[in-house]
Amino acid sequence: MAERNEVKLLGAWGSPFVTRTEIALKLKNVNYAFLQENLAAKSELLLKSNPAQKKVPVLIHGDKPICESLIIVEYIDDVWSSGPSILPSDPYDRATARFWAAYLDDKWLPTTRAIDTVVLAGEGEEARQAQMDKVYEILVLMEEAFKKCSKGKPFFGGDQIGYLDIAFGSFLGWLRFREKVHEIKLIHPAKTPELVKWADRFSQHPAVISVMPTTEQLITNLEYGKNLFAKVRAAYGSK
Amino acid sequence: MAERNEVKLLGAWGSPFVTRTEIALKLKNVNYAFLQENLAAKSELLLKSNPAQKKVPVLIHGDKPICESLIIVEYIDDVWSSGPSILPSDPYDRATARFWAAYLDDKWLPTTRAIDTVVLAGEGEEARQAQMDKVYEILVLMEEAFKKCSKGKPFFGGDQIGYLDIAFGSFLGWLRFREKVHEIKLIHPAKTPELVKWADRFSQHPAVISVMPTTEQLITNLEYGKNLFAKVRAAYGSK
Repeated sequence: MAERNEVKLLGAWGSPFVTRTEIALKLKNVNYAFLQENLAAKSELLLKSNPAQKKVPVLIHGDKPICESLIIVEYIDDVWSSGPSILPSDPYDRATARFWAAYLDDKWLPTTRAIDTVVLAGEGEEARQAQMDKVYEILVLMEEAFKKCSKGKPFFGGDQIGYLDIAFGSFLGWLRFREKVHEIKLIHPAKTPELVKWADRFSQHPAVISVMPTTEQLITNLEYGKNLFAKVRAAYGSK
Repeated sequence: MAERNEVKLLGAWGSPFVTRTEIALKLKNVNYAFLQENLAAKSELLLKSNPAQKKVPVLIHGDKPICESLIIVEYIDDVWSSGPSILPSDPYDRATARFWAAYLDDKWLPTTRAIDTVVLAGEGEEARQAQMDKVYEILVLMEEAFKKCSKGKPFFGGDQIGYLDIAFGSFLGWLRFREKVHEIKLIHPAKTPELVKWADRFSQHPAVISVMPTTEQLITNLEYGKNLFAKVRAAYGSK
């Protein structure tokens, strides 16, 4: 029976989507085996477990595969009561947290990644600033959302890290990577002061600190991060 | 107090995403006022209720706006017990239903709409067939999903229409529109026989029949549908 309850996570180190699921597992004190995927040569287990999308993360609980990071986080919350609730208990608060998480998944990556693209394409300072402004727009909405969701408490989820903390916070490693490589501030003390404090609190939470990649790690341990950092720095240098 | 519980739906007739929320409301026997939005000149109420996305549907429950069709369906299921459960009760079944619903939202519209694009661009029969094959790939995955989720019962949700029935079924109006305008079969008796039967059952369900636009209605009552139909037919005619 022990094997039927075994938990495996098919992941790729450095993926914010994988980080999400690890934070949820840590919050619930669930032991799991992390199976590192080579995304250039995906394992049979990954292809079999997520034939429609062929993407990490996949949580395998016993023999059941669960796919898509936010759906995995909900599953973890549903199945394990060995830690605080991740989803808010009130239906409206739950809908609000889900809305902002979906909004981030829709907007965050393309909008922040485009700062790299603009710089790599040598489009100039005005274009870079315009792209950063789009990121600030998202962040200002998230600052407002934070005020409403947290109701004066430290996290979107209130006293505890919750669903929206995990959905948003998982992007902080790469956000700081971009702050460093572009020598800019994205979560900005003047524009979004509450988010600055929230990001610090979130990053220092015990469930987060052990699984969230640091900027240094993304630059030195990850081939993709190392290459991106070098290319973007070179693009600035070549001006 | 009556007003605090009032339910309004900001919608646009013919939108499959709006249809989803109406099916859920009908299933739960919730009375609601449908407020038709003019998407070319959005109302103050819409802009105020969904400032981040400015999209329909928005459900307004009392004074609380809930956005994003699938999130609204979950909210309706959470709040009203005046009808069958929409989400499966088992956490794994719930995760599976959510996965396929998210997969459809990601893939369905761009893949099926591209059939129109290919024909309108005059790319020829081979390109049209290649695009249809991409739609068939999705449908074959959904046929497999149907077998697993329904467990031999009439709907993805079992004996009752559930979350994935609503998520997928809301696209049937436009699917049939495309079958008609392109003179093709997409849900195909030879390729996906279970889906053929499911689609008929779903379309005839009392909660669906009153809110799902028919092909005829999409062609005659909706400016967008009327124009698209005429343009695609003209593209075929001009070959």
